[in-house]
Amino acid sequence: MGPDVSARLVASHLTDLVLHDDRCFDPDPAIRAAARALYEETRGLPIVSPHGHVEPRLLADNAPFPDPTALLVTPDHYVTRMLHSQGVALASDARKVWRDFAANYHLFLGTPTGYWLDHELHELFGVRTRLSAETADMVYDQVAERLGSPEFRPRALFDRFNIEVLATTDGAADSLEHHRAIRASGWQGRVIPTLRPDRLFRIAAPGWALEVEALAVASGTTIGDVAGFIGALIDRRGFFIQHGATATDHGVVEPFTEQVPLDVLQHIFRRALDRSATAEDQRRFEGHMLMEMARLSVEDGLVMQLHAGALRDHDRVLAERFGPDRGGDIPVAVEFTRNLRPLLNAYGNDPRLMLILFTLDESAYSRELAPLAGYYPAVRLGPPWWFHDSMQGMRRFREQTSETAGFWNTAGFNDDTRAFCSIPARHDLARRMDANYLAGLVARHVIGIADACNVARALACDLARDAYRLAPLS
Amino acid sequence: MGPDVSARLVASHLTDLVLHDDRCFDPDPAIRAAARALYEETRGLPIVSPHGHVEPRLLADNAPFPDPTALLVTPDHYVTRMLHSQGVALASDARKVWRDFAANYHLFLGTPTGYWLDHELHELFGVRTRLSAETADMVYDQVAERLGSPEFRPRALFDRFNIEVLATTDGAADSLEHHRAIRASGWQGRVIPTLRPDRLFRIAAPGWALEVEALAVASGTTIGDVAGFIGALIDRRGFFIQHGATATDHGVVEPFTEQVPLDVLQHIFRRALDRSATAEDQRRFEGHMLMEMARLSVEDGLVMQLHAGALRDHDRVLAERFGPDRGGDIPVAVEFTRNLRPLLNAYGNDPRLMLILFTLDESAYSRELAPLAGYYPAVRLGPPWWFHDSMQGMRRFREQTSETAGFWNTAGFNDDTRAFCSIPARHDLARRMDANYLAGLVARHVIGIADACNVARALACDLARDAYRLAPLS
Amino acid sequence: MGPDVSARLVASHLTDLVLHDDRCFDPDPAIRAAARALYEETRGLPIVSPHGHVEPRLLADNAPFPDPTALLVTPDHYVTRMLHSQGVALASDARKVWRDFAANYHLFLGTPTGYWLDHELHELFGVRTRLSAETADMVYDQVAERLGSPEFRPRALFDRFNIEVLATTDGAADSLEHHRAIRASGWQGRVIPTLRPDRLFRIAAPGWALEVEALAVASGTTIGDVAGFIGALIDRRGFFIQHGATATDHGVVEPFTEQVPLDVLQHIFRRALDRSATAEDQRRFEGHMLMEMARLSVEDGLVMQLHAGALRDHDRVLAERFGPDRGGDIPVAVEFTRNLRPLLNAYGNDPRLMLILFTLDESAYSRELAPLAGYYPAVRLGPPWWFHDSMQGMRRFREQTSETAGFWNTAGFNDDTRAFCSIPARHDLARRMDANYLAGLVARHVIGIADACNVARALACDLARDAYRLAPLS
Repeated sequence: MGPDVSARLVASHLTDLVLHDDRCFDPDPAIRAAARALYEETRGLPIVSPHGHVEPRLLADNAPFPDPTALLVTPDHYVTRMLHSQGVALASDARKVWRDFAANYHLFLGTPTGYWLDHELHELFGVRTRLSAETADMVYDQVAERLGSPEFRPRALFDRFNIEVLATTDGAADSLEHHRAIRASGWQGRVIPTLRPDRLFRIAAPGWALEVEALAVASGTTIGDVAGFIGALIDRRGFFIQHGATATDHGVVEPFTEQVPLDVLQHIFRRALDRSATAEDQRRFEGHMLMEMARLSVEDGLVMQLHAGALRDHDRVLAERFGPDRGGDIPVAVEFTRNLRPLLNAYGNDPRLMLILFTLDESAYSRELAPLAGYYPAVRLGPPWWFHDSMQGMRRFREQTSETAGFWNTAGFNDDTRAFCSIPARHDLARRMDANYLAGLVARHVIGIADACNVARALACDLARDAYRLAPLS
Repeated sequence: MGPDVSARLVASHLTDLVLHDDRCFDPDPAIRAAARALYEETRGLPIVSPHGHVEPRLLADNAPFPDPTALLVTPDHYVTRMLHSQGVALASDARKVWRDFAANYHLFLGTPTGYWLDHELHELFGVRTRLSAETADMVYDQVAERLGSPEFRPRALFDRFNIEVLATTDGAADSLEHHRAIRASGWQGRVIPTLRPDRLFRIAAPGWALEVEALAVASGTTIGDVAGFIGALIDRRGFFIQHGATATDHGVVEPFTEQVPLDVLQHIFRRALDRSATAEDQRRFEGHMLMEMARLSVEDGLVMQLHAGALRDHDRVLAERFGPDRGGDIPVAVEFTRNLRPLLNAYGNDPRLMLILFTLDESAYSRELAPLAGYYPAVRLGPPWWFHDSMQGMRRFREQTSETAGFWNTAGFNDDTRAFCSIPARHDLARRMDANYLAGLVARHVIGIADACNVARALACDLARDAYRLAPLS
Repeated sequence: MGPDVSARLVASHLTDLVLHDDRCFDPDPAIRAAARALYEETRGLPIVSPHGHVEPRLLADNAPFPDPTALLVTPDHYVTRMLHSQGVALASDARKVWRDFAANYHLFLGTPTGYWLDHELHELFGVRTRLSAETADMVYDQVAERLGSPEFRPRALFDRFNIEVLATTDGAADSLEHHRAIRASGWQGRVIPTLRPDRLFRIAAPGWALEVEALAVASGTTIGDVAGFIGALIDRRGFFIQHGATATDHGVVEPFTEQVPLDVLQHIFRRALDRSATAEDQRRFEGHMLMEMARLSVEDGLVMQLHAGALRDHDRVLAERFGPDRGGDIPVAVEFTRNLRPLLNAYGNDPRLMLILFTLDESAYSRELAPLAGYYPAVRLGPPWWFHDSMQGMRRFREQTSETAGFWNTAGFNDDTRAFCSIPARHDLARRMDANYLAGLVARHVIGIADACNVARALACDLARDAYRLAPLS
């Protein structure tokens, strides 16, 4: 190691955790100057969070967060996956987990998780020391102390984060009690539900009968046939709309759609009720129900989100031991062009439909998604999702979609998180990366700075408001 | 908005439409300096346009273009797709369409369409004001006025554009009357036909019988069996060659190839004549006919182009209302390695065959196409096609293909356009992006500037001349 | 051509072959400065080469290399593919082949092959003139002269290259005689075998019976059923371990895995012995044997490498004429998520297993491989392979994998080469590109220089040592 680098290395270890003002921007002076200017346009704008997984109970109860580990480690599957991948098992004691996490913090170098965590520790908790085995306890205590103060209650943070609206994700039979409690409390924060009926469409899955029963109870009907089933869903859509919902969300492995003839559909549904539905039955039923959801969206105006390509619970052992969605999800290749054709041929030109598409298969960005969004009036492209809401992931998304779909066929940013305290970090990163992409166009004399400003503002807020019907596009 | 940016924003709105001399080049000084030098090497070279969709009648009639809308909006499916995607319907009055187009011009920010349109308005029509709702009429009038002058007749533009050769795309039964009229007129512009027999191979499609009938008439034969069918095609290939053609073009969804045994082929063809051919029959027939086309190319020297991966008329409603190819085409994933194996095993090592491959599935660039072009003597890679002949699309193409295929296994640039006036803009963008890619290698000390110059000139002209057998490679 | 460029062009032709100290680094000053510093950290580190195809006989015999053509052209399928793709047939005379190669050296501009060759000629043979038709004989003579000197014997080069360990690739029945000869010679160079049993699993292939016979002889057993077959493999694994092996290697088109029930497996194996196994039998047998190899790795600690996605001998004509693996391999799309699920569900969480995954399908980097490596403790990502161990290929690999898998779930660099003299060039390029990637993060203020140094050192040596169990991670 040369003497200069060694010196810097030591210096770096001694310095505190610093968030550079220009972080994530390309170092080229022309790009950086434009990126700074564009980012300044958007950094103070409110956060529109139209899709995510924050528990509404958090804001209903407004109780203090228990401890740093329960806040930043245990519930964040980005963090637990990475630790698991290096054989780090989670201890049972919160402080011990934190120490293991801190000792392995180098695993997150260059990852979005590391970026968000640094941001949270620095901006939210005033931590000025880099997290490591040596600093673990000090940081833990500092964060824990703050968590006890009133300014760190969820609602106070919601206001401090400047969140204009926060959408949660909720099962079809959900009572929305926490949403009602929030409204009843008089607190003005806008927290709205999103209807996610996926499990009701998986007719061959073991838990389906219970899901249908819960739906029947929630909608106050009996469900003896497919018409009753759809009627109950219509009832729930209305209930969600009453409670502020503007969207539904649908997670599928493959976005297959098909208008199944009614008689066939009835046979399939009967087999589902008899618990004899096959995998093929389920595939067709799910494909048909996506068509139905689009049809109902045309009628009631709920925006339809479609997340495709995550194979859930890849690690069956873990899933059986700890339950579903514990981090063992792995993407697969996704076909949109042929799969969505029936749905888009039926509803894609209808100005009343808004269909937002997400994928984990980046090869579909330029091949299928941008061309679809650049053609069908109903289609908007959702932001880079999950593994891809990172610096490089966001760059690839813009580079691969903007030229074909333009900017106005995209749907702004989603943080898609259950980690409430990471919301500002995620939106900040998105605004930085969009500013940097636009700055690259400005520095290459492809668009002017004035146009770039308008686009940056649209990407930061307006497009999300518009796509999710959360406010008129100004 | 900060005061600096606001000021620039206003300034930008006041300034005229400016095409920066360094547009599209990376801002890094080392790259930009090399890019400028390399671009200067090629900017004045003639345009070789070996593949496109300009109507030959345009140059046969040499009539003035009717109006700005008919020139720049209505026939350009890049433009009409984008307007459609945002729910902008085309009015019936030319000026009204232009106003809607101008008012929505922000949709094209950062897209190649916007780039080309700016180039055309600035360079060709002398427009110095950015197009918008406010300037719509002014620009319309300015363009309309120029269109009336003799220098804006198609042939005058052809000469002004410095087009060395322009290939059109023509059905197998086409009389080539416009090509003959051009020759007969004494005008020296080189406009050559390209034989595109796709529809003759879609034996299960409704219009097939009419296509075959037209082929029979054109070739002066009767077509009662597959030998007669191929004989008629041979006749047409000769006819096209007589009229200057150097290439055929084949558009397929999947580049499936198969040497079908003769007896099976005859049964398939008989079912086709009986109008009872199945989709599987068609697939095998198309696969076999690609083999036949390669075989005939070995004999008569016509270059074979293969465009794979566009699912045509995705929006069936639109296609039924307005006819095919109205913009509803969406790409799909394409497999080349296994599909082309029979054809390449039969003819891929034959120096007489030239097979140029195009795709809309960018994931095949580095995985399949570059390795195939880097191995088989017959294979050359066509340029980034359609949705990808853009700044980022061209960058990705070079980055993903050059290291495996080298530069000399590529086929230069194609504008592939029906928008005659956009031809210079498209070639200019390609030359800029190739200069910029090579400049990146120079600035990284991977190749020298002298070698980069040679490559730049090859990419701009020589490789297209060579691949399309339009002139000997100098 | 402008006068400035012309002057430079001439000047460039007159100048000697120069390897710039900063080659491959981005020209931006901030990135370049950091890249230089990071590269300086790693350039002097020893070479760990845990996967490659150097013939062990080379180091056992330690004979002089015959001539420049036999060293640099004939055995390098990167070179021969490219020449073949442009219709350059190899002559029978070494000097004539060299002249054709030199006259076509422009084909390698901007390719990794060209980069490695320049590096070898300059660094190893002291060539200071660019290779071309004009300089062919001069360079040939210079290289030939050096090859005769003792310092250019393989072992001397091994030491000069600073190779810490070199792994070869060897068939399961291999006697490892050359490895034993190396050990017996008293020379201290560490050359270890790698067990590659692929051909034993291809039960429907013509040569299978001979392979099994050789296995039986090598292991001193008879193989009458599947238990005997696996027993013989266990014996060979032990034999390889005794001779220093730390890994097995498995090449498949599709990484299909399946735990086949024992009775079914026995039937399949019996059909194999009867030479009546079908393609489907082989698919299941290969899938099962990958499971078995993982199970045995858990027991004996051999690292398991899985290379997926190369369709071998695409050009059947060439393969039949010149034998397998003569350069006609073309990649195909690969599915990992579903295919590897059985294996990973069985062994992926076992800390004793190390499974290193390679692909030629870059679309799987971010979609499947990084998420798998970022979840399963057993999985590490191998470096960009074959067509992708290039400047752009390495950049794409880091950009598409690091954010999801982190750096510590990757396995360092492999040169994967049979071209012994290219080993330093390849490792040097990898170290440069990793330095440049990390420098980009530093210049964007995403990670600090001290952390970047640690990562650079890990990527250069430590991760390969760790993943391949060649030394404890320091």
